[in-house]
Amino acid sequence: MFCLCIKGNTVPKLNIDIDHFLSQYWQKKPLFVKQGIVDFVDPISAEEMAGLAMEPEVQSRLVSLNDGKWQAECGPFQDFSRLAQDGATLLNQAVNHWHEPSASLVKLFHFIPNWRFDDLMISYSTPKGGVGPHIDQYCVFIIQGQGKRHWRVGEKQDLAEFTSDKALKHCGPFEACIDVVMEPGDILYIPPGCPHEGYAVEAALNYSVGFRAPDQKELLNDFTDHLLQQEACWQRYSDPELTQANLYGEISRHESDKLSTLLQSLINQPEVILPFFGQHFSSSNHELDILPLTQEMTADTLHSALLEGAIVRKVPGLKFIYLAQRPNSIFVAGEQYDVSNNQSQYYRNLCNPEVQQADIDEI
Amino acid sequence: MFCLCIKGNTVPKLNIDIDHFLSQYWQKKPLFVKQGIVDFVDPISAEEMAGLAMEPEVQSRLVSLNDGKWQAECGPFQDFSRLAQDGATLLNQAVNHWHEPSASLVKLFHFIPNWRFDDLMISYSTPKGGVGPHIDQYCVFIIQGQGKRHWRVGEKQDLAEFTSDKALKHCGPFEACIDVVMEPGDILYIPPGCPHEGYAVEAALNYSVGFRAPDQKELLNDFTDHLLQQEACWQRYSDPELTQANLYGEISRHESDKLSTLLQSLINQPEVILPFFGQHFSSSNHELDILPLTQEMTADTLHSALLEGAIVRKVPGLKFIYLAQRPNSIFVAGEQYDVSNNQSQYYRNLCNPEVQQADIDEI
Ligand SMILES: O=C(O)CCC(=O)C(=O)O
Ligand SMILES: O=C(O)CCC(=O)C(=O)O
Ligand SMILES: [Co+2]
Ligand SMILES: [Co+2]
Repeated sequence: MFCLCIKGNTVPKLNIDIDHFLSQYWQKKPLFVKQGIVDFVDPISAEEMAGLAMEPEVQSRLVSLNDGKWQAECGPFQDFSRLAQDGATLLNQAVNHWHEPSASLVKLFHFIPNWRFDDLMISYSTPKGGVGPHIDQYCVFIIQGQGKRHWRVGEKQDLAEFTSDKALKHCGPFEACIDVVMEPGDILYIPPGCPHEGYAVEAALNYSVGFRAPDQKELLNDFTDHLLQQEACWQRYSDPELTQANLYGEISRHESDKLSTLLQSLINQPEVILPFFGQHFSSSNHELDILPLTQEMTADTLHSALLEGAIVRKVPGLKFIYLAQRPNSIFVAGEQYDVSNNQSQYYRNLCNPEVQQADIDEI
Repeated sequence: MFCLCIKGNTVPKLNIDIDHFLSQYWQKKPLFVKQGIVDFVDPISAEEMAGLAMEPEVQSRLVSLNDGKWQAECGPFQDFSRLAQDGATLLNQAVNHWHEPSASLVKLFHFIPNWRFDDLMISYSTPKGGVGPHIDQYCVFIIQGQGKRHWRVGEKQDLAEFTSDKALKHCGPFEACIDVVMEPGDILYIPPGCPHEGYAVEAALNYSVGFRAPDQKELLNDFTDHLLQQEACWQRYSDPELTQANLYGEISRHESDKLSTLLQSLINQPEVILPFFGQHFSSSNHELDILPLTQEMTADTLHSALLEGAIVRKVPGLKFIYLAQRPNSIFVAGEQYDVSNNQSQYYRNLCNPEVQQADIDEI
């Protein structure tokens, strides 16, 4: 499954015992894997990175340390002269949406469920370049590409955090449990909450395969938006059992229990909450490389296009997801598609990475 | 408790067996009470109604039927010439916030807990005037003041609803279970969902004591806003127990259960949900008659003002509420005030209607 060719026919393979990694490190502690990918070949070049950073659709940042002062600018960029000097880093988010050879790298991490995946961020740093000490709420695998970078990682800890410049949050100094100069093919795993910082020893490319983990605020906020968009039949509070024992100025225990139940029952209904999860976690946090259709696509126009030799391919970064409890609903980019029992297995295969091309005969 | 003077020293009393009403009619079926208030005297005049409708703070509407076409306009109004003709109704919301003699009427209904109360709406209709057949989601006691109005009320039923003009929603024709010409002092109780329509036989004042009942949408929406305003410590999803048994494209049952729990636990915490109810239900849906303070009020300035003879009074319409499970938190107009055990009983008395004036010595 991981035998995919990226540039020059190199076949990248992950040199990690995945069972051991999951049980000992995943969401638990940082790990450095020397030569996590043997014979690593960069799928992208510094020039291509600059090209992407010129595109308005690509979220990019240029971080630099100038006379001891951190600066962060957001793209798109025209001028890359700062990258001719030391102490600068160019970062592009969601490169997997825009650059297929880079996207292939992500497949090495398909042992983590897709709904947890966020994006592949790539950074290009000139010597001494880095984004400074910081803490992420999400977790990440950082693969060292060309060049060398000196990385330090601390155990999960509470540290002061402050904003050093717009779009740049730093943490205070920390003790490192990993302190290493990374070379091409080395991999660093950093769980959420672990402080880290990396500075290039020589001009370097770093590949960050990042995973998201929703917090209660994100879930509640988006669940509420989701519900409010529905033409639902909302239950209303009613108290036909009211008696004069109720005190005028009081919300009684019975009343507040009833109000709580009214709220809770919204979240306790699988038929409401499961589709929400499907829609929410099949949506990407980053823009997709999709052009609006010039003409509406119907089953007929699709069929003739395919007969004329068109192929169906997944837009890179598009998420195909289903829920174990609802195998006949397929969620793609926030949309729900209900399929028949017959079609269900076919569509669930689409949710798996090895199926990249839909064969029209099977639809 | 209900012995309050309104205009001309009339003492209104409710001529209803409250226990019987609550068990048989409240939230169950409509009721007409002939002479529900004996010797009823209007607390307000048509002229005062027009005066209120000129104020921008007062929510007012003028509804009229012109050549078979319904029209609804929102105030404030300068021109009341339409009220010189038949078929017009002027409605003012929350008159209890602006007109104390009218506010006293509401006290007759203090057997319903305050947190359920919405406002006192008053309408003045010229002959044939009415707002047309409609259904409210809230329930209401309509007291007939001066004049006579022909009211029809149907049992709770599903009826087509449509917008006849901006700010005017109507329902289709319905069969009446109550069909009556109301005279001063007569009372109509209309539970949520029962269609009703009333047309003045002669120029009439109608007093609507309205109650609100939150639906799930309102609760969820406001609860979410409430939570998002808090500097809470949001729990984040984490899956240290992940194994390779997870399918790439699937949200497993275990995972969706964990996500649900994350959401549900927000609503299952009494220390989060109870203060929300207190804040939510002590807030009024309508503007209050409060001027911004010209200078900040401190305990000291308040104390000297009181020594100079100032009295503390409740702003009409201000809601004082507490929860049985949290007797030491008093909620006023959406704000929470935590008081000591010693003060608690005093402040809970403030939540009761008979306490209208705070005695400084007790504070
Ligand atoms: O590549 C970089 O400079 C930043 C990488 C990083 O901090 C991350 O992926 O979390
Ligand atoms: O007084 C009116 O015309 C309308 C009263 C009414 O429909 C209500 O209070 O629900
Ligand atoms: Co980071
Ligand atoms: Co009504």
